[in-house]
Amino acid sequence: MSDVQGMRPFVHPPVEDITLSGVLYALSDPARLAIIRALAGAGDCLSCSQAAPGALPKSTLSHHYRILREAGLIRSERRGAEVRNTLRCQDVDRRFPGLLAKVLEAAGQSASRA
Amino acid sequence: MSDVQGMRPFVHPPVEDITLSGVLYALSDPARLAIIRALAGAGDCLSCSQAAPGALPKSTLSHHYRILREAGLIRSERRGAEVRNTLRCQDVDRRFPGLLAKVLEAAGQSASRA
Repeated sequence: MSDVQGMRPFVHPPVEDITLSGVLYALSDPARLAIIRALAGAGDCLSCSQAAPGALPKSTLSHHYRILREAGLIRSERRGAEVRNTLRCQDVDRRFPGLLAKVLEAAGQSASRA
Repeated sequence: MSDVQGMRPFVHPPVEDITLSGVLYALSDPARLAIIRALAGAGDCLSCSQAAPGALPKSTLSHHYRILREAGLIRSERRGAEVRNTLRCQDVDRRFPGLLAKVLEAAGQSASRA
């Protein structure tokens, strides 16, 4: 499992290719938004399962992480058998200043009301 | 056409039923975001075709307006043969303060860079 030979590398869009549609769509799913909130709260990298809400099937999780990665919201790196994820906070902020903070603030309001 | 008998009334969610997921999903489509930007810029109500970008088929437009309406972003009212749409700016702002303004700001940045 620690042999990454033959595994496809993760693809991360450069900052200038991060689109507003991609970011909003990625954040529009409650499970994906929960992952982003966990990563933002951790202030450090988390493995896929650490950041994920509840017990989602592995294939569902992979799908969510792929959408977050392709939107430019997270960076994923293989560390042995594990994948570590970090929020691309600064990159997203360079592209759309203040947007991610505002969505996280709204998510916090939603959660405290629920 | 001015006879609205038999037409289904438009359904608008109350403020407390506006969800973050619904708002972000609705805004994640470029055509829908363009409609919202047009409505925000008009500062008044616009007919469906006035607010829509380019020449989209009528069925596509109806679909987009329905998603925006169900997310709580717009209010649609029949005026004779026409449907007039207004942005529910204050309602969305009561629910998620500053969010819509921040997304519109980001959309403006995207457009000026494109």
